[in-house]
Amino acid sequence: MVESAVSPQPTLQTINTPSLILNADRMDRNINRLKSHLAALGVQLRPHLKTGKSVEVARCLMTSNAGPATVSTLKEAEQFAAADVRDILYAVGIAPQKLDRVVALRASGVDLTVILDTVEQARLVGDASRKSGTRIPALIEIDCDGHRSGVLPDESARLIEIGNALSHYGAELRGVLTHAGGSYSARGSKALEQCAEEERAAVVLAASTLRAAGLPCPVVSVGSTPTAHFSRNLTGVTEVRAGVFVFFDLVMAGLDVCQVDDIALSVLTTVIGHQPRKGWVLVDAGWMAMSRDRGTAKQRVDQGYGLVCDVHGSPCGDLIMVDANQEHGVVAVRAGSTAGLPDLPIGTRLRILPNHACATGAQHATYHVVRDGSQFIEAEWPRFRGW
Amino acid sequence: MVESAVSPQPTLQTINTPSLILNADRMDRNINRLKSHLAALGVQLRPHLKTGKSVEVARCLMTSNAGPATVSTLKEAEQFAAADVRDILYAVGIAPQKLDRVVALRASGVDLTVILDTVEQARLVGDASRKSGTRIPALIEIDCDGHRSGVLPDESARLIEIGNALSHYGAELRGVLTHAGGSYSARGSKALEQCAEEERAAVVLAASTLRAAGLPCPVVSVGSTPTAHFSRNLTGVTEVRAGVFVFFDLVMAGLDVCQVDDIALSVLTTVIGHQPRKGWVLVDAGWMAMSRDRGTAKQRVDQGYGLVCDVHGSPCGDLIMVDANQEHGVVAVRAGSTAGLPDLPIGTRLRILPNHACATGAQHATYHVVRDGSQFIEAEWPRFRGW
Repeated sequence: MVESAVSPQPTLQTINTPSLILNADRMDRNINRLKSHLAALGVQLRPHLKTGKSVEVARCLMTSNAGPATVSTLKEAEQFAAADVRDILYAVGIAPQKLDRVVALRASGVDLTVILDTVEQARLVGDASRKSGTRIPALIEIDCDGHRSGVLPDESARLIEIGNALSHYGAELRGVLTHAGGSYSARGSKALEQCAEEERAAVVLAASTLRAAGLPCPVVSVGSTPTAHFSRNLTGVTEVRAGVFVFFDLVMAGLDVCQVDDIALSVLTTVIGHQPRKGWVLVDAGWMAMSRDRGTAKQRVDQGYGLVCDVHGSPCGDLIMVDANQEHGVVAVRAGSTAGLPDLPIGTRLRILPNHACATGAQHATYHVVRDGSQFIEAEWPRFRGW
Repeated sequence: MVESAVSPQPTLQTINTPSLILNADRMDRNINRLKSHLAALGVQLRPHLKTGKSVEVARCLMTSNAGPATVSTLKEAEQFAAADVRDILYAVGIAPQKLDRVVALRASGVDLTVILDTVEQARLVGDASRKSGTRIPALIEIDCDGHRSGVLPDESARLIEIGNALSHYGAELRGVLTHAGGSYSARGSKALEQCAEEERAAVVLAASTLRAAGLPCPVVSVGSTPTAHFSRNLTGVTEVRAGVFVFFDLVMAGLDVCQVDDIALSVLTTVIGHQPRKGWVLVDAGWMAMSRDRGTAKQRVDQGYGLVCDVHGSPCGDLIMVDANQEHGVVAVRAGSTAGLPDLPIGTRLRILPNHACATGAQHATYHVVRDGSQFIEAEWPRFRGW
């Protein structure tokens, strides 16, 4: 008892605000749900670690501590490599100036794969392979829905030309990859199932084109959180990438990919003022704590800068953060709601569910880990950032 | 020459991308411009250090290394206190749980002032004052334009009640403060001059109400970057706070508070791909590097996620970042423009001017400092973050 008086375990009522809170029970359920779904379809998960940017979160997500894993920056690759992850896909088109770091990671024993969509990049990756004496493996990026990078699935000549260039210049053609970014603007199971099937069909067509030309294509990689959850058939696919599902967020709830009470991430905040004439409650979480992400703005239900919950994590009716300055959040009843404003005295603690877990997480240096129904902070897990 | 071969000075062509670039010559001109303007009006500058979050930037901004300064978090107060800043205003409504840190900072020799707008907060600050044996100074926040917190300038009874409560409970009434947040949606000199005058009039009225009631009001503090630059008369005001002017940004250029070539902050990025059918150039700066801030979206000219410049910092005609994923930026010619897309091969370096310097800066751990017309990185200045 003396020890506990000297250094009491921190709780949601005692830690500084604003702080990032992670409900690890919700996270575990989110991970198990997707793993079960993909196991039933017979395809492995290569989780995207860009959402968590945390070794502890990564270890909850990955099949083994060695991987496989997906990253969005070489900084992530280096950080996870230092934590013994050995199978890493760097899923952003490779730039020539980054090849030294790719070579260094491979020399350290990491099976790091890059992605590209031009003959020019294939030549640069080949040159770096020959200079370093390692055949850098590459996936060709396929554009399945016109939202970002990649070769169109039916651009056979370009596909084969890139595949041949990889071999010719001394790199390794390891397969194809796509990302159904368009699924973030679909909604409901029917539309999402269709996005998933289009994603699968695009990359399987590209793989068959390469194979018909006598080129290898061992890896056929798809991935986005919405399509991963709504895929019904993954024939021809070897792996699924997904990231934000680990925490989920209001954007995913708005697409019906999850429920609001699946959201594992929130920002703990304190009431610092009121403007009763306007129906406003001021809190100490502004956009610096929430991020400027307004991903629900174009959805059916605009959640402002986030959905307001009590300190236990239960939504307070129709209360949302309607506006944000750098260190001020303006909390009010959602427009059109007839709900009243609850009594929230100065000092009251609230939790705000984020629009976009990747963006809100990135504003914080640590996770404060809680469990269902508990006020105690079980652990602090560091996040890293940068490139 | 051997030394320079061993460790060549980094340049805009050699450092990792994405990276945050600070043109210190532009910054110095921005600082000198506002200091000259305020000197002519006979009022001191209490710069807001939340934009820079850097000791080096703060020292360029402040009148002396000891201050005065404004901060938006206690973390900033603690970091700047550790760098010997001694006169700090914490300009976000005080929450009761933060008073221990306020007391600790004051005990360490920092003249830290808090702000508040309720009798309840006055009582809490008074209680903390008496317990700690220090009279914590407080400014009463005035709401000059209905955009956030504060007492209305003509709510005389409430103002006097808060002022009396501060004395009664043992704290120190040091004055009044306001922030013309509404000026961010004004534009042009006439409208901005009017915002500045309304800001001044509001806080001067509040000060006279307190003085007429026999209460002290030595500090009369106003501030926002737009009003600071367009104030023509600051009679009755003792200090001006402003933050974003140190770097300026596209939002401020959109309000005609600065020109595009005053913007001192940019994000260095590398071309990683093309979608010629769509007129897109893909770069390795996404929203993680730019932030999700879309502050120009409601302005006359929507700059997307930022205005694209060549590596020297000159705008590339009508090229903007039209969309962003976490680590991908989509660069294209602005809608409605007849300009052609320049040839930007993979590996080309570009610089993107931000919508909002506070938000973009916060995505990065260091500034890479350059001077006008130079490619050399003169220094790396760390930024801090958190609360």
